[in-house]
Amino acid sequence: MGRGDLAPEDIVRLEEDGPAVVLLDQRRLPDEVVQLRCASAAEVADAIRAMVVRGAPAIGVAAAYGMALADVRGDDLGEAERVLAASRPTAVNLPWALAAMRDEPTPERARSLHEQEVERCRRMAAHAVQLFEPGSRALTHCNAGGLATGGYGSAVGALRAAAEHGLLERVLVDETRPLLQGARLTAWELEQADIPHAVIADSAAGSLMARGEVDLVVTGADRIAANGDTANKIGTYSLAVLAAHHEIPFYVVAPSSTLDSDTPDGSGIPIEERDPAELTDRFPARNPAFDVTPASLITAIVTETGVHRAPYDESLW
Amino acid sequence: MGRGDLAPEDIVRLEEDGPAVVLLDQRRLPDEVVQLRCASAAEVADAIRAMVVRGAPAIGVAAAYGMALADVRGDDLGEAERVLAASRPTAVNLPWALAAMRDEPTPERARSLHEQEVERCRRMAAHAVQLFEPGSRALTHCNAGGLATGGYGSAVGALRAAAEHGLLERVLVDETRPLLQGARLTAWELEQADIPHAVIADSAAGSLMARGEVDLVVTGADRIAANGDTANKIGTYSLAVLAAHHEIPFYVVAPSSTLDSDTPDGSGIPIEERDPAELTDRFPARNPAFDVTPASLITAIVTETGVHRAPYDESLW
Repeated sequence: MGRGDLAPEDIVRLEEDGPAVVLLDQRRLPDEVVQLRCASAAEVADAIRAMVVRGAPAIGVAAAYGMALADVRGDDLGEAERVLAASRPTAVNLPWALAAMRDEPTPERARSLHEQEVERCRRMAAHAVQLFEPGSRALTHCNAGGLATGGYGSAVGALRAAAEHGLLERVLVDETRPLLQGARLTAWELEQADIPHAVIADSAAGSLMARGEVDLVVTGADRIAANGDTANKIGTYSLAVLAAHHEIPFYVVAPSSTLDSDTPDGSGIPIEERDPAELTDRFPARNPAFDVTPASLITAIVTETGVHRAPYDESLW
Repeated sequence: MGRGDLAPEDIVRLEEDGPAVVLLDQRRLPDEVVQLRCASAAEVADAIRAMVVRGAPAIGVAAAYGMALADVRGDDLGEAERVLAASRPTAVNLPWALAAMRDEPTPERARSLHEQEVERCRRMAAHAVQLFEPGSRALTHCNAGGLATGGYGSAVGALRAAAEHGLLERVLVDETRPLLQGARLTAWELEQADIPHAVIADSAAGSLMARGEVDLVVTGADRIAANGDTANKIGTYSLAVLAAHHEIPFYVVAPSSTLDSDTPDGSGIPIEERDPAELTDRFPARNPAFDVTPASLITAIVTETGVHRAPYDESLW
């Protein structure tokens, strides 16, 4: 792949010859652009767990292709769904995609679901443009880009659209420890999209807000509860508190596949604890992978249906 | 060195045979415990700039030994002071120590200054114990340990004393990107002191506060202005905002050598911008090494003279 936006099939696709689900190996970006072939639903589940593919909508899409792969292979579909559902706990897009595949676990259905997720991103971005003003300086966390959604991106999609409309001066990119999705993935996507950007330490965001260098914060989401409480990559909650302290708007951009009407509020969202060795293998460590931002700290939630504001239990549904 | 607290002379000392200033190379901890010999004041300045030795009181002590080294060698003392003063901008302990050496740049004077800094740490810790309650769960940032002060430590000294009084349940240690002083140095010191601890991503601190897992935040300082505004490692300001949001006390522990009565408030403190390559050499990046926490967010400042509370322009002086 050369310079330019990733095509959705470069990020995740099903090859019926083989057959295999082919994933861009996001662990190796930006140094190497290589793909990994998963020959079974169990291998897709392993790849999701290992974060070969990550980002809530993208793991939903990968799981949908995993079900289609199991169907093409004639595998036990109940078992395939079980292993895929168990791969990661926080993003609701995973059970959402599995439910959507249950009646028709075909390659065509999975591809349609993938196309719909990318289309949702484009519609979200069109709505999100209204949140930017000429010269806006944004800050984002983790990677809510095309890599995270199977193409175009949620928060990064909003940044793309703002840049196309001449409204974006530059983006500060939290590096996002421990796995550096910001410094490795978001910076790479912004470079390919020719959007000015600078990576910062996660801990520098507050200070740069205090200096007046941030006009808005834009992130994605892994699960949005019925009341608008939002789970996203660890550090998102801190950014929301800091944004409120500095009276900077804090926006979440996520497709409806990330909405979970069955979970009343954030206290019901399971938070994945990952291997402490992602941080250090030398000392004791704790590694919560997500946190929950209360709806009260979120200025607006953008989905493909529009820009939603509090009270979210009314506006989102 | 085996398990147990570091001796001050293990961290920084002057050897008149040679002569040389011998520094524990903090860049290589915890993997390797090795020392670096600096044969001139210019080499000491290079070591301070490269963060072989870091921490505001410790670089003051190293600079004092650098002046004594220049005197032993018969070098130009004005030139030695100039290169040492230019090594790093934010910590006021550096010009403070150089001023203290000006009239008597001898090895004895430098050793006395070093001993006094360690003694100040012990006195700060004795005062700081009153800030802890049985079962206190503390959070700290960067390394304000013996490595940062030439022995015992400021914030870590307070944690040592709290542990000795049976008041400390455990310490959450911010890893402190980009140079990982928390994950490499503070965790190592706490391990040696047998104090229970866990390293966390800097971005996880807010979420763990929200979960009720932090009773107090304790940090060091690089420069405290006349009104109590405090410069410290990047990320300290965010912690102070987060602590205030969660109604958790935020304490600064620093010796009087860190006080700068000549700077009225934080706006006058020079903030070092370090090489962006410390974060990433692949994409544009910004790397402010310090931030300023306004006095209004600091619950108390502990120096060797006691526990000081707002208004700091009265209580500190």
